Amino acid sequence: METVKIGLLGCGNVGAALVAILQRDAASIAARTGVRLEIARVAVRSVAKERSVAIPEGILTHDAASVVADPAVDVVVEVIGGIEPARSLILDALKAGKPVVTANKELIANVGQEIFEAAAATGVDVLFEAAVGGGIPLIRPLRESLAGERIRRITGIVNGTTNFILTRMSEEGTDYADALSEAQRLGYAERDPTADVEGFDAGSKLAIVASIAFGARIVAGDVYREGISGVSAADIAYAKRLGYAVKLVAIAEQLDGGDVAVRVHPAMVRTTHPLASVRESFNAVFIEGESVGQLMLYGRGAGGMPSASAVLGDLIDAAHNLRAGSVGRALQLHPAKLRPIDDLASAYYLDLEVVDRPGVLAAVAGVMGAHDVSIKSMEQEGAGAGARIVFVTHTARERDVQACLAELRALDVVLRVGTLLRVLEP
Amino acid sequence: METVKIGLLGCGNVGAALVAILQRDAASIAARTGVRLEIARVAVRSVAKERSVAIPEGILTHDAASVVADPAVDVVVEVIGGIEPARSLILDALKAGKPVVTANKELIANVGQEIFEAAAATGVDVLFEAAVGGGIPLIRPLRESLAGERIRRITGIVNGTTNFILTRMSEEGTDYADALSEAQRLGYAERDPTADVEGFDAGSKLAIVASIAFGARIVAGDVYREGISGVSAADIAYAKRLGYAVKLVAIAEQLDGGDVAVRVHPAMVRTTHPLASVRESFNAVFIEGESVGQLMLYGRGAGGMPSASAVLGDLIDAAHNLRAGSVGRALQLHPAKLRPIDDLASAYYLDLEVVDRPGVLAAVAGVMGAHDVSIKSMEQEGAGAGARIVFVTHTARERDVQACLAELRALDVVLRVGTLLRVLEP
Repeated sequence: METVKIGLLGCGNVGAALVAILQRDAASIAARTGVRLEIARVAVRSVAKERSVAIPEGILTHDAASVVADPAVDVVVEVIGGIEPARSLILDALKAGKPVVTANKELIANVGQEIFEAAAATGVDVLFEAAVGGGIPLIRPLRESLAGERIRRITGIVNGTTNFILTRMSEEGTDYADALSEAQRLGYAERDPTADVEGFDAGSKLAIVASIAFGARIVAGDVYREGISGVSAADIAYAKRLGYAVKLVAIAEQLDGGDVAVRVHPAMVRTTHPLASVRESFNAVFIEGESVGQLMLYGRGAGGMPSASAVLGDLIDAAHNLRAGSVGRALQLHPAKLRPIDDLASAYYLDLEVVDRPGVLAAVAGVMGAHDVSIKSMEQEGAGAGARIVFVTHTARERDVQACLAELRALDVVLRVGTLLRVLEP
Repeated sequence: METVKIGLLGCGNVGAALVAILQRDAASIAARTGVRLEIARVAVRSVAKERSVAIPEGILTHDAASVVADPAVDVVVEVIGGIEPARSLILDALKAGKPVVTANKELIANVGQEIFEAAAATGVDVLFEAAVGGGIPLIRPLRESLAGERIRRITGIVNGTTNFILTRMSEEGTDYADALSEAQRLGYAERDPTADVEGFDAGSKLAIVASIAFGARIVAGDVYREGISGVSAADIAYAKRLGYAVKLVAIAEQLDGGDVAVRVHPAMVRTTHPLASVRESFNAVFIEGESVGQLMLYGRGAGGMPSASAVLGDLIDAAHNLRAGSVGRALQLHPAKLRPIDDLASAYYLDLEVVDRPGVLAAVAGVMGAHDVSIKSMEQEGAGAGARIVFVTHTARERDVQACLAELRALDVVLRVGTLLRVLEP
C-alpha cells in the first residue's frame, strides 16, 4: 500500500487534533480504506512552542511555502485560517497539482471562486467539509447526495456560541449579558464576541452553503445580517408562550425566477420544528428540497476533534482520488441574482414601549395599517410608564415593515421601538 | 456533453418518481453537474398497466434481462425490491461492467457481500443510498465523510410506520390498535403490518448501516429484534411522566474487543435527546463517534420522491465516475464478531400486574435482587385486583433480567409480566 504524505499548514486546535487522530488510527484507517496517511511536514508560526501532541523532530518548520513546495508532500491540509497567507499557499499547492483540504471558512466564503477555478484548472480536488458545521457531513451531502435535488431553502443554526447563549436565556431566563459572560467563561465565546453575536461567522458559513446548494457565487458580504445582542429574555419568554423558540438562523432561499436570498437574523421558530430542539452549542442545518422534502443534519459545529474528523474524511477522499488518478466533480458556480431583504416577506414579532393612555393602540395600529402591515395578535404588558405592546403580524413585506417602524419611532406615544423578530415560515 | 443512459428495472413508486424528476429536471441537472441522464429502457411486470408518468413508447419491456444486456444501457437502476430476480439482474449488470444503483434494502441486508464482491471484481460502482432512510444522506456520509471515524454507536429511528404509531400514542393517548388503524388508513402501514411493527424492516436497515459503519459483514438475520405491538398507551404515559419518549430504536454498537451488537426494540429515550423530537413518520439516525462526537441525520425515510432523490444522487455519482473512467472506493467487509443481547447491559422499565396485598413488593424485590437487578425507582398504580407496579432498574445484564422475569412469572402474586422497555443510555 502506497503512503499518501500530508503537508499540514497550521497546528492549532484542528491541526493538533488531526495529528493526534492519525497517530492513533493511521493503521486502522489504512486497513479500512486502503489509504495510508502520514503527516510528512508541519508548518507552524513558532517551532519552539509547546504543543498538546508530540510531533517528530525534523518535520516542523515555520516556512509554510517550503511545505507546499516539498516534492515529498502529496496533499496539503490548510488549517491556518484567515485569507492570507492561506490563499496564496493554497493557490500554489493547486497550481502544483496537489489536492487541498481546508477548514478555512473565511477563505471559501470570500475568495472561494478563485480557489475553485484554480482547482479546476489543474484538475485536482479542493475539499472543505470542515469549513461549515465542524464535524457535520454537510458539504459532501450537498455536493453529491443532493446534486440532482432542487433545493428550495436551507435554514441553519450554524453558530454554536449564539445558540448556547439563546439556550441559556430560554431555559434559565438568564439575560443576554449574563449568558454571554457564561459562554465566555466556558470558552464558547471570544473575549470580543462580535464575530459570533453579530452574525458575521454565521454569514460566512451561509455564503458557502448557499454557493454549493444553488451553484451560485455568493460571498460573505452578500449576506444580510443581524445579530442577537438586541434580543431580551422578555422577548424569548413571550415567544415561548406563543409556542416558539428564538434562534439565530441563517437562511438561504431559491426564489421564483431564480433569485437567491441570503440572510442571518434571530427568528421565532415553532417548538415543533426540528430546529427548535437544537440546544446548547450544537449546530444543525435544515434543508427543504422539491423531491427530498425536509432533511436536517445535526452535530458539533466546532471544536478541534469534530473539525479534524471532517478534515480526515476529506483527506481520505483526496488521497483515494490521487492514487486512482481521478478527481471529484469540479464546482461550477454561476453568477447569483441576489434579492435584497427589502423585497422579502415574513411574519414579524414587534415589541414597542409606549405611553399608557387611551388612543395609543389606535395610533400604532393606524400606522401599521397604512403600511400594509396587518396585525395577527397583540398583547399589552405592564401599565403606566414603560408599558409594552407586543405584536405578531401576518405576512408583510420587509420594506413596508421598515417604513412602518420609522414612522412608529416618530410617534410621540411610542417611547421605544424594541426587538423585531421574523417568524420562520413552515 | 455525452449522455449516460439508464436501464430502469421496476417502475413502481420510486421508479415512477425518478422518471418524473428526470423528465422535469434532466437539462438543469446536466447544466449543474455536467452529466446528462436519460432513461433508455424501463423493465416492468406489465407493459399494459397505466402509470402516473408518461413513458415514451418503445422503451418499456417486461424483459428485465434484456434491459441489463442492452449495449445502449450504461447504468442499471434497480427498484424492483426483494431478493430475486433483483439479485441475478444486478450480478449480471456488474459482471458486464455496468454500475448499479439500487434502493433494495432486502437485497443489501441479506446478500450485500455477494453484490459488493461482484462490484469489486469488475471495478464498478454499486450504490444504495435509497436502501436506508429514503432521502436522508446516510450511506454516503458513513462511507466517505466518516471513513476515518471510530464510530461507537448508531441509534436510528428507521421505520416511519412505527414512529407514526408511537407519536400518535404519545401525543393523543391513542391505544396501539387505533393508532395502527389510523396508520393503515393514511397509507403509512400495510394491511399486514408485521414487517414494520415487529421490527423486520428496521432490522434490515440496521444490518446495512452497521455493515458500512463498522466495515463488518452483518446480515438482517443477525439483528436481535422486538416490535412495538406490546407497548401500551399506559407505558408511554408513564415514560412521559419520567421524562422519556418511547421510540422503536435500531442500535448498532462497537464494543470493547471489537465485538459488534445489533438490535431493534422499543426503548425509552430522554426527552432532551435529539431522537425524542423525531415525530410522525420521519426517520433519523443518531451517530456517536470518537472524534466527531454526536451527529444526527434526519428526514423522510420513505416515499417515492425522497427515495428517488437519493437514487438520483447515486446516479449522478455513478455517471460521473463512468465518464471519468474512475470508481468510488470498494466496500471491504470483514467477518463480524457478534455479541448476543444476553451479554449486553441496560437500564430497564418493567411493568408488573400484581395481587394487591402486603408482602408483594418484598417478594418481587427479592427476586430482582437475587438476579442482580437493582431497583432505581418504583411506583404502584391502582389498587386491588389489577394493581400495577412499574419499576425502573439501574443498569443490569440482559441475561439476568430475563432470568428474573422467568422467575417473576412463576410467582403467584404476579398476575402478569407486562412491558419490558430498555432505557437508552446517554
